[in-house]
Amino acid sequence: MRATLMYGAGDVRVEDVPDPKIQQPTDAVVRVLLSCVCGSDLWPYGSMPAAEQGRPMGHEFLGVVEDLGSEVSGLTRGDLVVAPFVWADNTCDFCREGLHTSCRHGGRYGFDGVDGGQGEAVRVPQAQGTLVTLPVAEDSALLPSLLTLSDVFSTGHHGVVKAGVGPGHTVTVVGDGAVGLSAVLAARRLGAERIILMGRHTDRTDLGREFGATDVVAERGDEGVAKVRELTVGDGTHAVIECVGAEQSLHTALGVVRDGGVVSRLGVSQYTDVPMGFDTLMRNITLTGGAAPARAYIEELLPDVLDGTVEPGRVFDRTVGLADTPEAYRAMAQREALKVLVRP
Amino acid sequence: MRATLMYGAGDVRVEDVPDPKIQQPTDAVVRVLLSCVCGSDLWPYGSMPAAEQGRPMGHEFLGVVEDLGSEVSGLTRGDLVVAPFVWADNTCDFCREGLHTSCRHGGRYGFDGVDGGQGEAVRVPQAQGTLVTLPVAEDSALLPSLLTLSDVFSTGHHGVVKAGVGPGHTVTVVGDGAVGLSAVLAARRLGAERIILMGRHTDRTDLGREFGATDVVAERGDEGVAKVRELTVGDGTHAVIECVGAEQSLHTALGVVRDGGVVSRLGVSQYTDVPMGFDTLMRNITLTGGAAPARAYIEELLPDVLDGTVEPGRVFDRTVGLADTPEAYRAMAQREALKVLVRP
Repeated sequence: MRATLMYGAGDVRVEDVPDPKIQQPTDAVVRVLLSCVCGSDLWPYGSMPAAEQGRPMGHEFLGVVEDLGSEVSGLTRGDLVVAPFVWADNTCDFCREGLHTSCRHGGRYGFDGVDGGQGEAVRVPQAQGTLVTLPVAEDSALLPSLLTLSDVFSTGHHGVVKAGVGPGHTVTVVGDGAVGLSAVLAARRLGAERIILMGRHTDRTDLGREFGATDVVAERGDEGVAKVRELTVGDGTHAVIECVGAEQSLHTALGVVRDGGVVSRLGVSQYTDVPMGFDTLMRNITLTGGAAPARAYIEELLPDVLDGTVEPGRVFDRTVGLADTPEAYRAMAQREALKVLVRP
Repeated sequence: MRATLMYGAGDVRVEDVPDPKIQQPTDAVVRVLLSCVCGSDLWPYGSMPAAEQGRPMGHEFLGVVEDLGSEVSGLTRGDLVVAPFVWADNTCDFCREGLHTSCRHGGRYGFDGVDGGQGEAVRVPQAQGTLVTLPVAEDSALLPSLLTLSDVFSTGHHGVVKAGVGPGHTVTVVGDGAVGLSAVLAARRLGAERIILMGRHTDRTDLGREFGATDVVAERGDEGVAKVRELTVGDGTHAVIECVGAEQSLHTALGVVRDGGVVSRLGVSQYTDVPMGFDTLMRNITLTGGAAPARAYIEELLPDVLDGTVEPGRVFDRTVGLADTPEAYRAMAQREALKVLVRP
């Protein structure tokens, strides 16, 4: 089959790789209908050292079950399924606590001999625990929104849930990428009263407003902090969802959080230390968030996607065929595209 | 009156100061029956630059209402009251959210012309919102335990509440000082199943066991982390209460927390940065805690103290008269005493 491999910074290729086959009785093979490029893929795209062996890319996909191991129940060949961005058994103690990202028998696509999602097919380990059946047809217009359950919308939701966002709360979302916009949508869905989106790409913040942002702050750094404080009578907001991962955005997040409030991290951290000394201790600031256990949220989010209450798939603003994934990376890295769908 | 003042590191004096008088209609004057020295007082005791003007010390006290401003209702002269370690109006939005430490009209004892608690009397601003009446006599044997509601037991409780500790949870408490032991007691009270106390002073950890610790780990640093991991089949504990504030104890706390778990900070931070980069993000670690809004907890904790369900006053292992507060500081700084009561 054809699949996307990364050989180093800026070096993404689509190549022939072996067709996936059942290896364990708990595996499934899924033919990919729809995949996409993640903001987190852009970090290695910017910095991965050149390698002789390409790394299979992609961890967000939905598709059709083609083959099943003998121990998989609850799934049938032909089922349309979405895969959360890590695979997990959904039965261990961590999974039962809703932390599938720490599953005792889980792992990541593209590592340890498991295919990436940006290809024609994927062998999915722990298929019974991982895959969720979708009650739609292969040509459903909902597929892009359903694909966001794999990662980006579930991630936004995770950040908001960990921040304890609820009715009447004020929220700042730092970053207008696809995760930031998803966090806006998720915060609105959970009843946040005021949602301040920090971002400076007008086309993105416009979508953010449609998703529920009540205010947009284009300023960054200290100026951005001052602006959010000004909007909140000096207090800052109850929750801050950090959707970038850079040192500056982390500082901004800590600068705009209200006393007793929560900074919830979704951006892949490019920093090693968080400046949380005496001041944040006295102010009772909480730092939370992390890699989203998407699997834990899919059943909850699915109905609202199916009935159109939320349309998280609107974060996709471009579609390419599999041969063009290198172009998808380039366009996202250069901020020409927000998030690119890949249709094998 | 006589009161305790600190003039610099190691320099604590008991001197004559003006008698407190009502200055605002919202004030009360409280004659102190019982006060004590806080672990947090030891930080300036170790490092305060020499000053010409002494700083009034003490923020934990209970006593008798001697005088009341015209706008204070709900209190009567002669009432026995406990004062949380910050004063607060108990009506602003932060107080209503249970964050009295960020009260819009609150403040700290010993600053801005307000007396410290280690003296014969205190002018308490925002008395109606701050003081809580205690239904006991002046000679009650419960006074030491009731005094802990002012800070140390409420602080331990806060750390445990912020960590979300409940039945079945595993908890590590880092530090065997009075706050650490109070956190053990509070964790047990809220149903924690396993409580690992990290400390190396046997007399303190023995009391910790009586308070509910199921395991004691005397090792520190990496060795201590390895020991806690060994006790928890490699996983670490759901909650970690950091009760020291040093860089090493913070590292230890992050080293023994389970994936998806919470590090709750109570120790006054002597560090400026928290090492929470990629690893803690992937593991969904939460950092929380902070200065305890004691006022928010007193009504909840009071019944258990009154009926003897908990005896947090057992952290006091020495009592001095007001003239001897310098000796109390010395004894605590040299770890000869765990926590010292001051009886003016």
